[in-house]
Amino acid sequence: MVSSVRACGVITLTTDFGHKGPYVATMKGVMLRRFPDAKIIDLTHEVFVHWPVEAGFWLERAFRYFPEGTVHVAVVDPGVGTLRDIIVAEHEGHVFLAPDNGLLGSLLRDLEVSPTYRLDLGRTGKFQFDPPSATFHGRDIFAPLAAEVAAGRCRPADMGPRIHEIVPGWVDAPEVDGDRVQGVIITADHFGNLISNIDEALVSRFEAPRVTIAGRELLVQRTYGERKPGEYLALINSFGVLEIARAEDSAAEGLGVGRGAPVVVRGAR
Amino acid sequence: MVSSVRACGVITLTTDFGHKGPYVATMKGVMLRRFPDAKIIDLTHEVFVHWPVEAGFWLERAFRYFPEGTVHVAVVDPGVGTLRDIIVAEHEGHVFLAPDNGLLGSLLRDLEVSPTYRLDLGRTGKFQFDPPSATFHGRDIFAPLAAEVAAGRCRPADMGPRIHEIVPGWVDAPEVDGDRVQGVIITADHFGNLISNIDEALVSRFEAPRVTIAGRELLVQRTYGERKPGEYLALINSFGVLEIARAEDSAAEGLGVGRGAPVVVRGAR
Amino acid sequence: MVSSVRACGVITLTTDFGHKGPYVATMKGVMLRRFPDAKIIDLTHEVFVHWPVEAGFWLERAFRYFPEGTVHVAVVDPGVGTLRDIIVAEHEGHVFLAPDNGLLGSLLRDLEVSPTYRLDLGRTGKFQFDPPSATFHGRDIFAPLAAEVAAGRCRPADMGPRIHEIVPGWVDAPEVDGDRVQGVIITADHFGNLISNIDEALVSRFEAPRVTIAGRELLVQRTYGERKPGEYLALINSFGVLEIARAEDSAAEGLGVGRGAPVVVRGAR
Repeated sequence: MVSSVRACGVITLTTDFGHKGPYVATMKGVMLRRFPDAKIIDLTHEVFVHWPVEAGFWLERAFRYFPEGTVHVAVVDPGVGTLRDIIVAEHEGHVFLAPDNGLLGSLLRDLEVSPTYRLDLGRTGKFQFDPPSATFHGRDIFAPLAAEVAAGRCRPADMGPRIHEIVPGWVDAPEVDGDRVQGVIITADHFGNLISNIDEALVSRFEAPRVTIAGRELLVQRTYGERKPGEYLALINSFGVLEIARAEDSAAEGLGVGRGAPVVVRGAR
Repeated sequence: MVSSVRACGVITLTTDFGHKGPYVATMKGVMLRRFPDAKIIDLTHEVFVHWPVEAGFWLERAFRYFPEGTVHVAVVDPGVGTLRDIIVAEHEGHVFLAPDNGLLGSLLRDLEVSPTYRLDLGRTGKFQFDPPSATFHGRDIFAPLAAEVAAGRCRPADMGPRIHEIVPGWVDAPEVDGDRVQGVIITADHFGNLISNIDEALVSRFEAPRVTIAGRELLVQRTYGERKPGEYLALINSFGVLEIARAEDSAAEGLGVGRGAPVVVRGAR
Repeated sequence: MVSSVRACGVITLTTDFGHKGPYVATMKGVMLRRFPDAKIIDLTHEVFVHWPVEAGFWLERAFRYFPEGTVHVAVVDPGVGTLRDIIVAEHEGHVFLAPDNGLLGSLLRDLEVSPTYRLDLGRTGKFQFDPPSATFHGRDIFAPLAAEVAAGRCRPADMGPRIHEIVPGWVDAPEVDGDRVQGVIITADHFGNLISNIDEALVSRFEAPRVTIAGRELLVQRTYGERKPGEYLALINSFGVLEIARAEDSAAEGLGVGRGAPVVVRGAR
């Protein structure tokens, strides 16, 4: 199989490392040592700790905004140093590198279409890695491999055997049942907007959809400014999913809910 | 009118988006897709939420430290998706792009000297935008336009009609009355230093100026180390405005005040 | 003495400035004005405020992951504007620029091997600095000098007289006494892992080492996943020092300790 990805030199980083200490920085240092022209973009380092669901969700919704041939590295990895695998996938002209812990479960829905490989360090030895630490594969394995891919010197298919199954995502796809869709809050953003996994297409099939969350029923608006400050609203956000917001305020705080909370959409078809 | 700005490839980003989620990152992705050599610097993403005053204040005080020809993008935009305009201005050899919600009100004091244009998407269509989302113009409008300007392919004057009035800043300039100047705290920094809008020139006109805030009277020092740990002080900070600090401690916490708090300077002339 | 450092264009920044306001950004702006090709990496800006110990610790443990010839700028500088000196050092092919307040005390153990100079602004005047502010030498002195060094136009030896003594680090090296080593927690990371100054070599000399912290005795594991969620453990972390963790939880919160807390390792040799 010939790789359909053409490296463009861009690498994104998605982790739950936060901004304390040199964890992210040393990943970048390792990349620059191998590939001085790497363009490294922080997607976010504030994924909810040990919650790969959020990392996979954002990657799935955000990757198309980056140049084709971008290498996306995601490290939310509570099982680091245990027997969990590392996988690398090609998907719509981009490359994804992550632990096989469900993080990429919702992005990679069809492994026949998105060729996916299980990293075999025996095959990548020619890139002269130092032996990895037990607790920071982001720096010791993901970073050097991402740099090699972004530099065009290594293809996903060079890294290990193709696989046809990965660990599934931790959160089920929304449940669709006639005039009712039930999804889940994946995360809250900096404004306290609650972001669900319910895709626009599941909402737009209804006429006059009504959204229920935390015992409250909301109508779907076009933008925040259509409600008065302090009022709650639902909308399809800029990443194409249902979001619960509070105009000029925090819905997460106001409603007292967060990741994992159920959201229901009802309407006539 | 011929543009006096020569693009240098640098773009700064100032938002209230925080660091959660891929909001800032997708703006950068969009920029890199159009202009792979863009040098993108985060000015800050921790502007007080929905408080364009702080964004405009910092831009005004910070822009001169960047190369001439830098494009400064500021998105603090509670009215996104409503009828508020977007403006682009040339000012002292730099370009500024922001919603017309007062954010640039204090920077652009004289629109005759700082040519300013109202974005007309009809004129920028040749840059092949996708239709913008209702809630994220930062990614869908500001980012691609900033990239085009930074790449030297688009000038502010290409984006829409020149205008001679913009929404004024939300905070009045300090009130000067003989031996008394009254200003306002614009924000607190990471150390808890309280930063006012009172320019050095309004303080240095006094002999032995005395600063009053939260019922406390302070003398003006040269630097933090001139007071013992825990003592309050006033000083002219490195951005040329009056700042209230507490040596090796947080003035904001100690005094219990923040943005919007009044500050008075008195002295003999 | 001929410099052994060859500039590679990379600069790292380590501060306690946080992410509010344009403090870090204006340092980058100043660098780009002098050296448009600078590659600037944020090491961290969340050093515990006014605690140079953490900055020096992370630099010492992280610098080798960056390309040879990197310039590392560290600004944790409660004494800014007072008589404290600024020093620049060459160490293992990298350059370090910091206030002489103990920050580099543990990195630079032997100034005969790591040539170190005291900045003399009289000698660097040819780089046409504006007069520095009293409170932000990071932007006004460190940033332009770092850019000149990273651009290969200035060597540490050009900046001032060589010195043979600097302010020592604030935290003593671990105390080693037969079958007992006592060290100190330097910082906690985003996960709440407690990071000590006890090097791997001081632990591996023991058979079956036992770690005591906050009245609790722990065994040394290889990685987090070897304990059940909620259990405490000790391990040698990816930066080669003893770390106290709590599987999928925060040891700092659980134990109620932080920087400065004593840690003891005991064992048979």
